[in-house]
Amino acid sequence: MDERKFAAILGVYGRPADRFMAGGYKTSKPDVFERLKMAGQQAVVRGVELIQGENDDLNTGNKGRVKAALDDNGLSLCAVNPNLWGEMHWAKGTLGSNDPAIRRRAIDRIKQAMDLAAELGCPYVGIWPGQDGYDYLFEIDYAQAYQWWVEGVQECADHNPAIRIGLEYKPYEPRTHSLIDTAPKTLLMLADIARTNVGLTLDVGHALVAHENLGEVVALAQRRNKLFHVHLNDNYSDWDWDLNFGAVHLQDFIELVYWLKRTRYEGWYSVDIFAYRTEGAGSVAESLAWLGAVMDLVEQTGMEKFDQLIQASDPLTTSRFLREILFVQLHRV
Amino acid sequence: MDERKFAAILGVYGRPADRFMAGGYKTSKPDVFERLKMAGQQAVVRGVELIQGENDDLNTGNKGRVKAALDDNGLSLCAVNPNLWGEMHWAKGTLGSNDPAIRRRAIDRIKQAMDLAAELGCPYVGIWPGQDGYDYLFEIDYAQAYQWWVEGVQECADHNPAIRIGLEYKPYEPRTHSLIDTAPKTLLMLADIARTNVGLTLDVGHALVAHENLGEVVALAQRRNKLFHVHLNDNYSDWDWDLNFGAVHLQDFIELVYWLKRTRYEGWYSVDIFAYRTEGAGSVAESLAWLGAVMDLVEQTGMEKFDQLIQASDPLTTSRFLREILFVQLHRV
Amino acid sequence: MDERKFAAILGVYGRPADRFMAGGYKTSKPDVFERLKMAGQQAVVRGVELIQGENDDLNTGNKGRVKAALDDNGLSLCAVNPNLWGEMHWAKGTLGSNDPAIRRRAIDRIKQAMDLAAELGCPYVGIWPGQDGYDYLFEIDYAQAYQWWVEGVQECADHNPAIRIGLEYKPYEPRTHSLIDTAPKTLLMLADIARTNVGLTLDVGHALVAHENLGEVVALAQRRNKLFHVHLNDNYSDWDWDLNFGAVHLQDFIELVYWLKRTRYEGWYSVDIFAYRTEGAGSVAESLAWLGAVMDLVEQTGMEKFDQLIQASDPLTTSRFLREILFVQLHRV
Amino acid sequence: MDERKFAAILGVYGRPADRFMAGGYKTSKPDVFERLKMAGQQAVVRGVELIQGENDDLNTGNKGRVKAALDDNGLSLCAVNPNLWGEMHWAKGTLGSNDPAIRRRAIDRIKQAMDLAAELGCPYVGIWPGQDGYDYLFEIDYAQAYQWWVEGVQECADHNPAIRIGLEYKPYEPRTHSLIDTAPKTLLMLADIARTNVGLTLDVGHALVAHENLGEVVALAQRRNKLFHVHLNDNYSDWDWDLNFGAVHLQDFIELVYWLKRTRYEGWYSVDIFAYRTEGAGSVAESLAWLGAVMDLVEQTGMEKFDQLIQASDPLTTSRFLREILFVQLHRV
Repeated sequence: MDERKFAAILGVYGRPADRFMAGGYKTSKPDVFERLKMAGQQAVVRGVELIQGENDDLNTGNKGRVKAALDDNGLSLCAVNPNLWGEMHWAKGTLGSNDPAIRRRAIDRIKQAMDLAAELGCPYVGIWPGQDGYDYLFEIDYAQAYQWWVEGVQECADHNPAIRIGLEYKPYEPRTHSLIDTAPKTLLMLADIARTNVGLTLDVGHALVAHENLGEVVALAQRRNKLFHVHLNDNYSDWDWDLNFGAVHLQDFIELVYWLKRTRYEGWYSVDIFAYRTEGAGSVAESLAWLGAVMDLVEQTGMEKFDQLIQASDPLTTSRFLREILFVQLHRV
Repeated sequence: MDERKFAAILGVYGRPADRFMAGGYKTSKPDVFERLKMAGQQAVVRGVELIQGENDDLNTGNKGRVKAALDDNGLSLCAVNPNLWGEMHWAKGTLGSNDPAIRRRAIDRIKQAMDLAAELGCPYVGIWPGQDGYDYLFEIDYAQAYQWWVEGVQECADHNPAIRIGLEYKPYEPRTHSLIDTAPKTLLMLADIARTNVGLTLDVGHALVAHENLGEVVALAQRRNKLFHVHLNDNYSDWDWDLNFGAVHLQDFIELVYWLKRTRYEGWYSVDIFAYRTEGAGSVAESLAWLGAVMDLVEQTGMEKFDQLIQASDPLTTSRFLREILFVQLHRV
Repeated sequence: MDERKFAAILGVYGRPADRFMAGGYKTSKPDVFERLKMAGQQAVVRGVELIQGENDDLNTGNKGRVKAALDDNGLSLCAVNPNLWGEMHWAKGTLGSNDPAIRRRAIDRIKQAMDLAAELGCPYVGIWPGQDGYDYLFEIDYAQAYQWWVEGVQECADHNPAIRIGLEYKPYEPRTHSLIDTAPKTLLMLADIARTNVGLTLDVGHALVAHENLGEVVALAQRRNKLFHVHLNDNYSDWDWDLNFGAVHLQDFIELVYWLKRTRYEGWYSVDIFAYRTEGAGSVAESLAWLGAVMDLVEQTGMEKFDQLIQASDPLTTSRFLREILFVQLHRV
Repeated sequence: MDERKFAAILGVYGRPADRFMAGGYKTSKPDVFERLKMAGQQAVVRGVELIQGENDDLNTGNKGRVKAALDDNGLSLCAVNPNLWGEMHWAKGTLGSNDPAIRRRAIDRIKQAMDLAAELGCPYVGIWPGQDGYDYLFEIDYAQAYQWWVEGVQECADHNPAIRIGLEYKPYEPRTHSLIDTAPKTLLMLADIARTNVGLTLDVGHALVAHENLGEVVALAQRRNKLFHVHLNDNYSDWDWDLNFGAVHLQDFIELVYWLKRTRYEGWYSVDIFAYRTEGAGSVAESLAWLGAVMDLVEQTGMEKFDQLIQASDPLTTSRFLREILFVQLHRV
């Protein structure tokens, strides 16, 4: 197994569905214990992310057995993610909901996830506010919803400063417009939240959809030491397809890895894909094999070479350089 | 009720789901008879589209009862749509599948839908090839898949020339690339299919996502008398959000209605939305109220006025004209 | 003439070019005095924006004559915009350039623009950093360029705290990635700049291209009292086409006007289009006539009605409401 | 020099401009003879494309001298492209203009280009209809403009059946909507034109902007033997940035080369970029070095291996395969 901090969201080993195939693209739907076993036996990831919820991977009812299964399978729990998107009461938002009861419920839920994380020795809780945003004009008070998010996250952060909270932005889907939609919006909100234990989670595909440069996102977030977590997947820069990492992009990922190393990112690299029509475990393996190859390439090349490219700021030199490190074998045979 | 040929896909009255809320955004999931009753009582649409399938609206097992329910509720059946997207065997395609058994099954299924349509007095079968396409590079033989589609549709068309078949293109989703993705691709394929009873179905939102001008699509399709059916919805031109018609666009829809009238489109105007967070029946009513208002506007203005705009080809004259017909009431109060 | 603070960038009355028609789309190229006369005689705008530069509208050599011409034509100078994009030395950036001499030159240039603004009684200087960004991977050090921008703007701001500086973001073009690309990125940078006389300039088309909701941009910027200026134009949400305002969008613009009023925006509404194939003055007039009509609509409807829509947060109610205020005349005739 | 049919549009060696830097991004503007010399001395391309026009590379006045310069520099003339975009009379269209005099002038111009091509021993004329399309709603009669294009191209094609004419589609720019915007639209029009000497020109960047898969475009065009010419450049799939080929994509280009070889494309590979901020000749060299490397990779790997990937239709197998051929050197060191 690679020594690196490679991980996966455990759901990737399960059965994905979409709005047209709501029953799912796989015949079976393995439960959390079966999926932990799959991940353990596969021996590709060292960490897993679990979804917290009564009908999800982890909850107060099964925490003991989940803990045991993690240990049995030699897996670290690298993230507890409260399910803030797939329960019907969240359909119109969570911390930013117009309904104060929903906002309260969301805060309590996040705190509960933090407690579970603390109990299971996991230092990180991931928040993906998928249902917070809007679909129609005049649907929400933008300034108010932003403020509720600031205050809600502050309360959660103060609940246990030892647990790090990552806000995972996404430009859209399921809402046509997400409230926390881009890296700069997240960093702006983090400045307003002003808590050291709250940071940004970069989902590679979300950034690509937002027309963001991955390297720049890392540079800006790390300028404030705020990159807490990374999700891996790929797409054609048009939609969050959640394809295998490496399916579409390559040069961008070289730059991403460079900036992660340069800014001394020490978190996990966690596969977050929807393997609709490919085998889940194999998709995790391929995604991490691509990442590993890109990491090897950067390491063998040497960071200082990339530093020099940036210093030179000459796209032709960079083109030649990238071409040579990628196609070196052609000149050998 | 409006005298126009207003319709809806009956599923709009049901329970929509997406990949994050796979259980659905509504508490109840009314069956086809309940939904027919809702549509009948609402008295907004005169026609409905039904999905054909063992687990869907219409099949050989329930056709008699469905027919009776249509009659009881005063509804015309304007489309029978075989479910070619939501059954697991279609996950990698239908008429264009690599598997000959799947291709055969898809042909048989479409013929079955045509038979049901004929039996229930419906002149149209709608084919949306959502699962035909690809997600990854080197996944399919593009030329071969195209050819299989041509031959498959030909066989279906010849099964019953009295039934019209509409191919509904969409740029992507659920596949990252659909095989039948744009209006010109569809028209190109229709030329190769060369059957008078096969045409194009325009889904307004799909065209917007493909960066197509709606009026141009109608003009090009009708140049060959190939516009068979129209689906109504709206989006921000970035994704097939399936919002209420009229939520985002207006000027484009005025031009769309103009070209539909000018080319003497005589088919249905059928609402095809996903009312995730709005009430289904109300969303149908609003969508058709917007369409009706745009139609009234065009009719009261007079087609010849729009003809003159095109003849003049002067964007400033057009701007003034559209502004005046839209804001006339401001000058009255 | 409308009593509102309607304005235009004076270049709109001139000769636009693009990369394929570099010689321009008009036969003549009127100089600044001819264009001031055109704007004055047209009597549609009360204010104009001038580009500052040796070969542009305004410079130390012609400031006296420009001042006189402004007065003669009854026009206010609402913005002085240093040309930081069209002089060859800026090709790879200004305040964020790798070259310290270029950064110094850019700071001096902005200060010079501020001095001219002060001298001519104009309270605002607009900065559009079009050439700051990158086209290729590994081209710049993102964190460093950001820092240079923060420091450069701070120095400018401190040069004359009585002059307001607006940063106009744009997702891309002429660079494939702008450094200051979205509203949140701008607001984040403004927080780091931390000067009361530096704010955000909203170009409607730039926000649409960035997939931003216009109302939300206003709400977030005004939450910090940072909306300093507004540029008007329109596009299909895919590229900064700089079409006449009102050519494509309408419902979005109603919400925009609502939020501008609600947050008590008191700045100018300035037309910034490229009238490639339409007459410049007429395009200004049409753009402002659309804005005026939307403003009239919002005012006659009453702000509290829109407040209620947001409170209700029911898209169907909103749909009905917008439909009725837009199509009221249909029910009258 | 590579034995392959590598070429460039001669303008790439010149001075590019855009709408913000209309005077151009380079200090000097070499004339056609200087640029031919640059290309000849560089010894990277074997062919060049020339723009035909009174103020462009090639015209009746300089044809003898150009012919001599081509010979002197050892360059083949692989395309004569009439300038149908940059002369003011074309601002609102050419073969599809509303003005019959303009349509006539455009036909004559294309015939003139064909005559020059014939005279100089060049078998191909490239038509890029950049100004044909529309910016505003109700601006043109879509069906009429399409028909004019069909008839106009027919007349040109019949002028000299020995000269091949390539139609180069592009989704937009300089018009917000091009008339000939996608590969399928072009193929549809080619079916209506019905002339063997008229085909499609694929500009890689244009296809990427249209969300087309490059391999599929080749497959569909070659199914009718209609791929006449290929233009090379790259972008982020969001706009026709005309970056160096290889700057962004790689896996897509491997598939492109596979399909070009598989369908026995025998035309030229011609660099068509805008080297705004990079040296022109070096940008040509880098673009073709990337293409050559990809070609080497495909050839050394063997076409049958890629055939098998498509047959297998298993994205994980493909992922592994591409990863291994790209990163093979990592396992060697």
